[in-house]
Order: sequence, then C-alpha cells, then structure tokens
Amino acid sequence: MSEKRNPSWLFWLIFAGSVGAAFVLGLLISTYAERRVETQMVYKPQVKVAELEPRSEIWGKNHPKQYESYLSTEESSFKSRYNGSAEIDMLEVDPRLVVLWAGYPFAADYKQGRGHRNAIIDIYDTLRTGAPDGTGNDPMPTTCWTCKSPDVPRVMKQEGIAAFYTGRWSRLGPEIVNPIGCADCHDPESMNLVITRPALIEAFRRRGKDISTATHQELRSLVCAQCHVEYYFDKRENGSEYLTHPWDRGLSAEEMEAYYDERQFSDWTHAISRAPMLKGQHPDYEIYTSGVHAARGVACADCHMPYTVAGNQKYSDHHVRSPLDNVANSCQACHREETEQLIADVYERQERIIQNRDALEKLLVRAHVEAGVAWEKGATEKEMAGILTLIRHAQWRWDYVAASHGASFHSPLETSRVIAGAIEKVQECRVKLARVLTRLGVDQEIPYPDIATKTRAQQFIGLDMEKRTREKAAFKQKILPQWLAEAEKRQKQWGKEIL
Amino acid sequence: MSEKRNPSWLFWLIFAGSVGAAFVLGLLISTYAERRVETQMVYKPQVKVAELEPRSEIWGKNHPKQYESYLSTEESSFKSRYNGSAEIDMLEVDPRLVVLWAGYPFAADYKQGRGHRNAIIDIYDTLRTGAPDGTGNDPMPTTCWTCKSPDVPRVMKQEGIAAFYTGRWSRLGPEIVNPIGCADCHDPESMNLVITRPALIEAFRRRGKDISTATHQELRSLVCAQCHVEYYFDKRENGSEYLTHPWDRGLSAEEMEAYYDERQFSDWTHAISRAPMLKGQHPDYEIYTSGVHAARGVACADCHMPYTVAGNQKYSDHHVRSPLDNVANSCQACHREETEQLIADVYERQERIIQNRDALEKLLVRAHVEAGVAWEKGATEKEMAGILTLIRHAQWRWDYVAASHGASFHSPLETSRVIAGAIEKVQECRVKLARVLTRLGVDQEIPYPDIATKTRAQQFIGLDMEKRTREKAAFKQKILPQWLAEAEKRQKQWGKEIL
Repeated sequence: MSEKRNPSWLFWLIFAGSVGAAFVLGLLISTYAERRVETQMVYKPQVKVAELEPRSEIWGKNHPKQYESYLSTEESSFKSRYNGSAEIDMLEVDPRLVVLWAGYPFAADYKQGRGHRNAIIDIYDTLRTGAPDGTGNDPMPTTCWTCKSPDVPRVMKQEGIAAFYTGRWSRLGPEIVNPIGCADCHDPESMNLVITRPALIEAFRRRGKDISTATHQELRSLVCAQCHVEYYFDKRENGSEYLTHPWDRGLSAEEMEAYYDERQFSDWTHAISRAPMLKGQHPDYEIYTSGVHAARGVACADCHMPYTVAGNQKYSDHHVRSPLDNVANSCQACHREETEQLIADVYERQERIIQNRDALEKLLVRAHVEAGVAWEKGATEKEMAGILTLIRHAQWRWDYVAASHGASFHSPLETSRVIAGAIEKVQECRVKLARVLTRLGVDQEIPYPDIATKTRAQQFIGLDMEKRTREKAAFKQKILPQWLAEAEKRQKQWGKEIL
Repeated sequence: MSEKRNPSWLFWLIFAGSVGAAFVLGLLISTYAERRVETQMVYKPQVKVAELEPRSEIWGKNHPKQYESYLSTEESSFKSRYNGSAEIDMLEVDPRLVVLWAGYPFAADYKQGRGHRNAIIDIYDTLRTGAPDGTGNDPMPTTCWTCKSPDVPRVMKQEGIAAFYTGRWSRLGPEIVNPIGCADCHDPESMNLVITRPALIEAFRRRGKDISTATHQELRSLVCAQCHVEYYFDKRENGSEYLTHPWDRGLSAEEMEAYYDERQFSDWTHAISRAPMLKGQHPDYEIYTSGVHAARGVACADCHMPYTVAGNQKYSDHHVRSPLDNVANSCQACHREETEQLIADVYERQERIIQNRDALEKLLVRAHVEAGVAWEKGATEKEMAGILTLIRHAQWRWDYVAASHGASFHSPLETSRVIAGAIEKVQECRVKLARVLTRLGVDQEIPYPDIATKTRAQQFIGLDMEKRTREKAAFKQKILPQWLAEAEKRQKQWGKEIL
C-alpha cells in the first residue's frame, strides 16, 4: 500500500484537473459564442419565396447548404444489397411478386424507390401509370400525383381537394413537373415544418387528434408520414378517388385490415385465384411507430436527415437517404459501436426476417395457383369464399411488411410477428384448398410454377409486356414533350405571386 | 447580444467549475482508497473449504454476503405475469401442453422453474421422476440429477462420468441432497469460476474449442450454460445415458434438429400422432447467444447476478433472479430509461411473440389429433411418414423457444423467426393431412378437442393422474426419508477431506 494517501500526489492531481477543466470550459464558451454569431449572420433571405412556390431552386437561394444536400437525392444512394446498383428491378430480383400481383399494374413494373429528386421522371417511366395518348382514358387517377411533387399543394389550392383527386392521371401532366422538394414540408416565410397533404390531417382528425398541435420533433417524422404511409383511393360519389389513410381503428396490419374489411374494399381481383386483394402501399411510418426508435423519441429525420456541420453551421442534411450510407452522423450519434458492426447488425435483423418472408411468398404463389385449379375443376363460390378471404388477409399482411421500406430494421419484431401471422393464414387457406381439391379429384400437390425469372413469371400470368412497353415509348415521344413545354411556358409567366 | 463575452461572468464560472472539479476528485480518491482497504480486509478465509465440498453453508462462512444473497433463491422471485404466484403449474396455465407431450412425463407435471435453492425438493416432488419404491425400476436415469446439485461433481469424481450416468434415478437418491450451490461454479481454493459439468467441456471440444481458455467474462455465462442449455441422453453401449449437448453443427434450432435427425434420435413417440418427437430442454444459453446482449458482451451474470454494493464492498448478487425484480442494478447499469418503461418494453416484446406461439400450439394440437384420426381411418405408414416428420420438426421448433427461459427477451427476433418456421411446417403437415383425410372420407375440419383445463386435457390423452399422485405420496413417505437419513449420516462423517 505504498501509494496510500500521498498528499503531494493528490495536490498536483487536483491542481492539474482544475486547470484542465478551466481550459475546456473556456474553449466551449468561446466556440459557442462564435457559432451563435455566425448562425445569426447566415440567415438573411436572398430572395422572397412566394407561397406554394414549387421550384426548390428558388428556395435554395436562401438556404444553399440544405439545397445542395437535397440535390444529392438525385444520386439514389439507397444502395441495394442485391447487386449494388442504384436502380433495382424488384420483379427481376423476386419474380414471385409477378404472380402475387397478377391482374394489377405492379405485376408489369416494380422498381426499388430512388431518391426524391427522381420522383417525377420515375412516374413518367413506370409502366404502372400506363401510356396516356391524349384521349384521357389512361388507367390511373390524378391521385397518383399526390406524393410526387410540391406542385400538388399548389394545384390543390387552385382546384380544391376533391377536384384535385378527380380525373385521369394525364389530366395534371402539364401541371405537375417539379420533383419532391422544399414546399412539400416547409412554410416559405418561417421555414417551419408544415403538413401540406390533406389526407394526413384528415386521418389524424378522424382519430380525434389535431395534427396542428404536433411538436417540432413530431413534425420531423410527420412531414415524412405525408407520403411514407399506407393509403387507398376512396371512390366518392362525385367521382373523385380520394386519397385516404385507413387508420380509423389503428395503424397495425390487423387494424387496417379490419378497416378495409368493414368497407368491403379491394384494390383488385386477383387474376388467378379471384381473391379480392389489398395492395399494401409502403406503410413506413406505421411500422416505424411500433419500433424501439420511435419509442425512444427518435424521428425519421434524426437518422435519414441527421444534423451535420459545415464550417461553423449546424444544419439538417437534406440528402435524404439510408442511414447506412451515413452511419457516423446517424447511428453513431447514439450508438457507440463501430460502423461495420452497426451495419452488420442491420443486415442480421434483415436476414432473420427475409428467410420467412421468402417462404411466405412461395406459399402465397402456391395458394393462388391452387385456388386457380380449384376454380377450373368446378369449385363453388360458396366453398371458395373462406379460402379467398384467407388469401386476401395473408397477402395483405405480407404486403404490409414487404412494401414498407426498412420494416425489418424499423421494427424487426413487429415485422416478424406479422409475417408469422401471414404464414398461418396462407397455410390455413391451403389446408382448406387441399380438402376442396382432393374432393374434386386433385389429390396430389400441384407443382410449383416455373417462374424463375421476371419474363417467365409474366408469361405465366399472361402479361403482354411488349405492348405496354411500346405504348409507353409512344407516350414519352408524343405526349410528354407537350406536358413539359406547357409547364415551362406557365412557370416563365410566374412572378412573385404564383397563384 | 447583451451577454456576449462578459469577462467577469466567465471568470467566476471557470473558478466555480474548477473548485467543484477539485472537490469531486478529492472525494473519489478518498472513497476509492478506503474501499481498497476494506476489500482487502474482508477476504480472510474463516474456514478451509474441502475440494468438491457440496454444502454451501460451509463456503458461506468465508463469503457471507454472497451466501446470504444466494439463500434468497429460496424465495423464487421469478414472478409470473399469469397470477403473481411464485409456483406456477404451467399445465393449468396452458393445457395445450398436455396434448403436445402426450406419452411423455411432461404431460403429467410441468411447473415453472423456481429458485436454485429449491432444485432438490422440486425434483422429489415432480411427477416426472416417478415414484421409486426401492426396487430400482423407476422411470428416469441418474442423468436427471446432473443439474440439480453440487453433490454431482463429487459423485462423478467417485464413480467416473459414464458410471454416474448409469442406472435409475433412485440409485443416487441417498447421495445427492444439496441444492445447486457454490461448488457448481467455483473452485474452493481460488474462488475462480470453473466448469464442473463434463458435458459442456465435451461439447466445446467436439466443436474444436477449448473451454479452459474462456475469459472470466465468458465464464460468467458459461457456468450458467452448464445447465441452461439443450441436452439429451445419449444411450451408450455400456448402459449409460450420457448427458450430451447436440451442438456439433451449431446452436440454432435448425442445426440441432439436423444433429438429432442424422442420429434418428427421438425422446419419445407421441401417443396420438405416433410422431417421433424431440423434447426441447431449456436452450437458454443457445438463444441468448443469438441476441443483442450477447453481441454486446453482456454475460448472464451481468443481468441475473448484477454487481451490487453493501457498505463499502462491491460483490456479485448471488440472488440469481429475473432482472425485472432488480432493474436498478441490472438494466439501468446501461439503459437510462425509467424502470416502468424498461419493464413495459420487455412485456411488449413478449406480447408480440406469445400471440403466434399460442396460435402455433393450437395448430400443433390439431396436427396431432388429425394424424390420430388418419391412423384410425387406415392411413398407411408410407403416406404418414412425411407428415410425422413435419410434426416432429414443427414441435421441436416450438419447444426450442417455448422451453427456453426468457427467449422472447433474450433474442426476440430469433424467437419469432423460429416460431414462424414452425407455423409453416405444422401447417404444411396439415395440408398433407387434409389430402390423406379427405381421401379416407373425412372431408370436414376435425373439431378442436375440449382441453380447456389441465384436468380435461389429461383425460383427453387418457392419463391416470390419480395413480401417479398416489404412488408419489408413497415414495415421499417411505423411500425419501431413508435417502435423507443415509445422506445425513454420511455428511456427519466428513472431515476436512470429503472424497
């Protein structure tokens, strides 16, 4: 015990500690004071931004750092694990999807989402919007534009909400040209976060909540929840297809399913099984709310638009992207593990889910095919009714998690729970189908279809891809240039007031 | 900017900060010095503890704090959410278990595990060990004692390992009387953690690992893994039923299943479905290794025996128990959330799993019952073979997680993944059964049996509980007192050397 209570050693340690503490304190105070000055200097508006100004480049003059980072969303940095490419044809990656969506436009074309700056060019390109030919009988409603552009709040204000949701997609082609940008989430005067899409406000109201009382931190998720949510097109008497979030009972897969069931709503009738299907639409926010990050008060923006520092200015990175591309500013703000470890942790969660999700998809393919054979062999509407409901419910659960971006990270256990429930239902359906089929003389397992590639799967469901591709090319050659010319002409006429 | 660069304010802040830092530093140094002295004073052995001394009360003289906390394991603080009672009849709580284990002793009696101090009295009481009558033909082997007592290493050293595992359970009744205690995990000379059970050492060796190189932190889990693991009794040529961990391929449900399959091992043949079944034996350590706490280097003891402070002495709390009874010392050492929130988080994970686990149990009951009807109606061995394998695999997966203490917290996603796989398999089995049954003329769903209570479920499987209870009482009246008297006599003869 030679070092016990050495007064000289103790004195110098206290002295050095005190001097060190004083130095650090002084440094902090000095840096803080300087940064306050710089921050206050920076925000002098260079231009006046009009109300509902859809062109982000104009907002960018006042907020160059946010704007420059926003421009990077063109890069689509949401890299895939499948092949490292930024544009992924999900139907090539997983041709089972073609069969699951037989009879619905997703069977023709479904690519992985890209960065916000690509929202408009991607909706031109996708085969799902069909090929408007100028006659106004294209397949999709105007409602499909709702999440694509800051032109939407502008046109909604001009036309009214229900009127906006009325007519074919092509009707607003010349109006909506700016990709997702500043005006989708910000008020141009105060730069406060604002909810610009009525569906979210209305969904909150129906649940007895007033979204206008949301805190800034809540809004850092809710502005994302304007689009990254489940929705459907509610066909109203006035002809509008009104964008609606099915949240009246709650945000879980089961609660939304009950909502749809009590309205007997279906997105389409399956081409093989004839089941009344629901299409899940990226319920990202819903699944996020069931996860631990939401429980701890972490907002979407905390990870997808983390605070960053350029020079002396702290700002929210507007290069909205996967946190895995930016672990240092996102995950590591809280988690003190190495980047490689954190990324490995995310993939490990995904692996434990993908295995059962893939199994579920195969079972859903089998269920559709087996139901198709049952119809061929003469099954009755009555004996198929319960079977078709089980297909509907199982595929809805699958789509609830499969369509949700990042579900297996945002809320892995909830994702796994929903998949397990879907497996139970699709297999219960196949138990019933086995009874029907055996009675009808089909007493062996029906072979799994040859759907090893997207092309073969599309052939299996009888999709004429050549025709769709040809018509789309004609639209892009003839109609699209007219839309763009018209839009450019109008935008040139805009002065300080837009409406 | 009136407060900008105020030199007087800054000076006083630095001064106060420095004085405060010096004070805290001084306090810490003083406390540390005192504590070192106290710690060094405390450990003076009061008695010499013999090698393999099974009586914890003797060790306790040298380590009164650890011993006193260890005594609290008698209290069985692992409270249940079901009814708050410390002794839970799991067959009452969940009578489906009776059907799942039809033909196996667990169908007669399965209670929630209690604290370590109850290990011996509970193995006397459980109907699973039968009722030895002195003739040596009781149902269980000596191997059943292996995890119950520090007398086990002593008797193993006397008899040899394979010999220990030989004979009926009753053979060692007079030898093994001290409940799980000090000698199970500690070396009496150094008090280092030691592995006393050969099965774990052997399982590591077969995987090419040398357990003697484990670090202290690893041993803080591995001493628990001596018992809180999956095992089976490997019947050897010399008549021993050798306790073995099926880890040669790995620790996951699928890897252990493959191990059992390639040996065509089964614990029993199911009384209704005739499936060759596996009984999962609390694979706590295995599931823990797949979870985030293990990934972050947290040992079993960190949460179940957290460091605590009594007076000036820091020691590991030997009241082994649920961290939920001791959140402040366990969870809150790392997690800065309120106790109520942390407990709610655990229950929330459990809820998301229990729902599908319960559904799985119902489906397993159906599968057994449907297979039973198929046999009755004349199904052939050939057409039932694949069906029985699916039952075996589905129920093994269920038991892997259901039998594992705390699985839904230790590794919620892995637990959910395994359950989803089990649901897929049991339902695939039922698809095949539906074909067989419909062909045999049973074309409607077979009603779910009336198994609403333990009693009705035991009647359903035809179990004579009255006889078992009566015989057990006779054993406790006639045989057990002989064992205890013999043990007491021998222990009185022990001096400083035990062997």
